[in-house]
Amino acid sequence: MRDDNAALWESPSPWGSHIGMKLTDWQADFARVELTLADFTRNRHGAPHGGVHATMLDTAMGFAGCYTGDPERRQLCLTLNLSVNYLSRPQGTRLIAEARKTGGGRSSFFAEGKVLDDAGMLIASGTGVFRYRKMA
Amino acid sequence: MRDDNAALWESPSPWGSHIGMKLTDWQADFARVELTLADFTRNRHGAPHGGVHATMLDTAMGFAGCYTGDPERRQLCLTLNLSVNYLSRPQGTRLIAEARKTGGGRSSFFAEGKVLDDAGMLIASGTGVFRYRKMA
Amino acid sequence: MRDDNAALWESPSPWGSHIGMKLTDWQADFARVELTLADFTRNRHGAPHGGVHATMLDTAMGFAGCYTGDPERRQLCLTLNLSVNYLSRPQGTRLIAEARKTGGGRSSFFAEGKVLDDAGMLIASGTGVFRYRKMA
Amino acid sequence: MRDDNAALWESPSPWGSHIGMKLTDWQADFARVELTLADFTRNRHGAPHGGVHATMLDTAMGFAGCYTGDPERRQLCLTLNLSVNYLSRPQGTRLIAEARKTGGGRSSFFAEGKVLDDAGMLIASGTGVFRYRKMA
Repeated sequence: MRDDNAALWESPSPWGSHIGMKLTDWQADFARVELTLADFTRNRHGAPHGGVHATMLDTAMGFAGCYTGDPERRQLCLTLNLSVNYLSRPQGTRLIAEARKTGGGRSSFFAEGKVLDDAGMLIASGTGVFRYRKMA
Repeated sequence: MRDDNAALWESPSPWGSHIGMKLTDWQADFARVELTLADFTRNRHGAPHGGVHATMLDTAMGFAGCYTGDPERRQLCLTLNLSVNYLSRPQGTRLIAEARKTGGGRSSFFAEGKVLDDAGMLIASGTGVFRYRKMA
Repeated sequence: MRDDNAALWESPSPWGSHIGMKLTDWQADFARVELTLADFTRNRHGAPHGGVHATMLDTAMGFAGCYTGDPERRQLCLTLNLSVNYLSRPQGTRLIAEARKTGGGRSSFFAEGKVLDDAGMLIASGTGVFRYRKMA
Repeated sequence: MRDDNAALWESPSPWGSHIGMKLTDWQADFARVELTLADFTRNRHGAPHGGVHATMLDTAMGFAGCYTGDPERRQLCLTLNLSVNYLSRPQGTRLIAEARKTGGGRSSFFAEGKVLDDAGMLIASGTGVFRYRKMA
């Protein structure tokens, strides 16, 4: 399944490249991004900075609502609201964010997501409201 | 005023260094962080990634609640909830996030913040709920 | 000023009537609603239920974005996201919610609001994302 | 199962009584509340007011984190943040909110919830951060 649609996946955005975040699954209404924790992901007390989880959730939720199945038809979106709850500090070495589209219509969509560590612990959760950009 | 308490300002966290975010003011219940927009701050359609605003708001709001006025007494906090609204795409070359503590008690605090560009346009706004960490 | 545009104010919605909430100011990008605390506004431990503050913020923020100045042109909106932070328990006998529109365009808008008690204490704060409904 | 712990359920709060909201399930880390739509639940354009969904989510999420299994040991909590996304307008005659605790520790907890109508459609979703009150 992953192999079938892998050709549809995008290469990382500049921000994604800068922080080492990768899209590892993308299907209708679903997306997953992953990131290996590094020295540079730390905040002032050594845990991953809240901006890391926010980045991953915003990205995964946005992709979840923008899947078209056709690399020639690239759907873009703008985030209107992102809300993140921070539940735990990760034990593992990697963060995995999975998101799915939960509703919406032609102009906007809703999504929710979770960030797990590679030990399977729930690290953060998020919800988002997005607006579709007109396709060229 | 800025000069007086500049000695109290911290050097950037690893995440802050990695993305070029700087603390440029810090007083009781208030903090400001700034970041110069760069190629690496872009998302898949060329605008600053939502994780950038989220990072800046989380940081500025956290600092706003953790000012002690004494570099030897370092107060830390954990973000419980971060909510960000994305209002506009910046026209300028720099983002400036200002935040202030709005309430709370001994164990937790509330804060709100704004992200402006250097043309003074409101780009994003945020609210946060934080928990204090015990001081060593 | 209040007298001048009072004729533009609407009578309360059914929900507003049921809970005793009144629109007490409404101008371009701004609205205020008020509610007298009563036995029926209490939650299981005697404080105003969180749904009361949420109701007031949702209402005041929605009105803030829907002012037209013309009672014949009634602008309606749908809430997409409402986020509320609960800062304090009120000391007074009345809650006052003030909200203002902070941004947006033709299809959607952003707003923020505060709930104070009649002693002037900040009780809750909120942000909202709204979508305009087509006008008939 | 519902019958076994029904004796543990509380009678509605004053606010719950005023709007006709009932607790219909309560277990460890889970709660459900229901409300029959009525004329008085309408907003200015005839749909359920956003304060209704917010009330139901705040209540269900709060209960989800406060189950003790012992009517003599009543755990109370304070809402710190409530975030609600409004996905659809209900087709049915009743709203059902289900919530579960997703994390937390001794002093605070996180929860998420959904509001469905009696046709099973997803109407709203929410997340919350809560602080436990000391038990007497």
